[in-house]
Amino acid sequence: MVTLVEIDSPDDPRLADYRDLRDVELRKSLEAAEGLFLAEGEKVVRRATEAGFAPRSFLMAPRWLDGLADVLAASEAPCYVVSEALAEQVTGFHVHRGALASLARRPLPTVESVLSGARSILMLEDIVDHTNVGAIFRCAAGLGFDAVLLAPRCADPLYRRSIKVAMGTVFSVPWTRLPDWYDALPTLESAGFTTVALTLSADSTDIEEAVRGLDKVALVLGSEGHGLSEHWERAASRRAIIPMHAGIDSLNVAAATAVACYVTSRR
Amino acid sequence: MVTLVEIDSPDDPRLADYRDLRDVELRKSLEAAEGLFLAEGEKVVRRATEAGFAPRSFLMAPRWLDGLADVLAASEAPCYVVSEALAEQVTGFHVHRGALASLARRPLPTVESVLSGARSILMLEDIVDHTNVGAIFRCAAGLGFDAVLLAPRCADPLYRRSIKVAMGTVFSVPWTRLPDWYDALPTLESAGFTTVALTLSADSTDIEEAVRGLDKVALVLGSEGHGLSEHWERAASRRAIIPMHAGIDSLNVAAATAVACYVTSRR
Repeated sequence: MVTLVEIDSPDDPRLADYRDLRDVELRKSLEAAEGLFLAEGEKVVRRATEAGFAPRSFLMAPRWLDGLADVLAASEAPCYVVSEALAEQVTGFHVHRGALASLARRPLPTVESVLSGARSILMLEDIVDHTNVGAIFRCAAGLGFDAVLLAPRCADPLYRRSIKVAMGTVFSVPWTRLPDWYDALPTLESAGFTTVALTLSADSTDIEEAVRGLDKVALVLGSEGHGLSEHWERAASRRAIIPMHAGIDSLNVAAATAVACYVTSRR
Repeated sequence: MVTLVEIDSPDDPRLADYRDLRDVELRKSLEAAEGLFLAEGEKVVRRATEAGFAPRSFLMAPRWLDGLADVLAASEAPCYVVSEALAEQVTGFHVHRGALASLARRPLPTVESVLSGARSILMLEDIVDHTNVGAIFRCAAGLGFDAVLLAPRCADPLYRRSIKVAMGTVFSVPWTRLPDWYDALPTLESAGFTTVALTLSADSTDIEEAVRGLDKVALVLGSEGHGLSEHWERAASRRAIIPMHAGIDSLNVAAATAVACYVTSRR
């Protein structure tokens, strides 16, 4: 059973997990150092706890308590009850979705365990925008992809903005970081996946052709700015494009991922 | 030939078009009142002028002058040359793409002229997020859609953020506002388009089935939050979904648009 704790000072040290949510750099280092992440909004907080993440604490204004009553009842973590003005003062923005929770990160699973039983996966190289990472997870979940593997420099799926755009699917789609960028694609090939890089290369074929009839597929996606590294592009066993209308060379990475996942899911 | 004008005071009234670019509400009213829009970055500024929009002025630090020399040479508008610090002070952010231009809006074309010769179009109801509007235009352009029609409350394609996310495709894809929300869909049907609403309705069919073999198609898309109004949903002659994996009900609107445009472009 949760303990409700009313707090009326913005300087209360128990609010440390919730400070300055708009300061991306500060949050990144604080969340890594403390091993926490933040969930925002009733639906997302619920999904995080349902996925088995352990709450460190909750923070909300009184009017949000009822909506999460069952989640709070099932938790041992404290719930800090604050005014909306104080929540805004601490977090640095108007928390219009109401409830926040700070949850403990878990150790990342091994690549092997994430791939176990998977038939369609995404490999993200250096996608640095949290919105894009979130949108890609939502596509993966909606279009039946089984797992997501992230290169070391890819943005964090458990960052608040990623979680929100992903509608919490970062909790349900298995994912991990690739410990080894250099040999990532050969590792996937050894595990029986055909690696298909989405890239504007001279030998790229239509994505429908590239995935047709394949069993296990890893779609390989590069960064928003300069696309895939040459190393990953050449290491992939196939290169594919989404055919574009004259004069336009590409879609944004989330839109391209949606189309590529859709096509691959119907291979 | 452009006139280069060095400006060193942030209060110079000639910089009025460029003030407070991060204040969305202020910008919306200023840009509507003055009949202007802003383009940001060499590529986008170039595309705007190539599309025939008349510059009111340019604003840039000296190091960006060379890259746009040809555009500036072809223009009669003044180019305000400022330090990067002054640009930041006036606009309210670090202009890392360098060049800005203020351009004159043009009267919106009629619906009839936008539809002339079109075979695949998008109708956006109340998509209020500039990023989504921009991403949708980029999809439309890349996947060969001929025009975009916007309901009265849809976000502005010429807002700086929309233009940027669209990579300037808002200048090349014909678009206009629907003057009449209520009868918009019957108007399209009268013009020979089958209206296909993307929506989770009891009678929605798979998008591939819904568009198969159709000649002129209008894909109808609703807002990010609550989807289509019931009026537009029922006014459409067909309702369609992108089949989703168990437990996930939808993609975000830009991803869904990408998939729907892709499928429709191959009907």
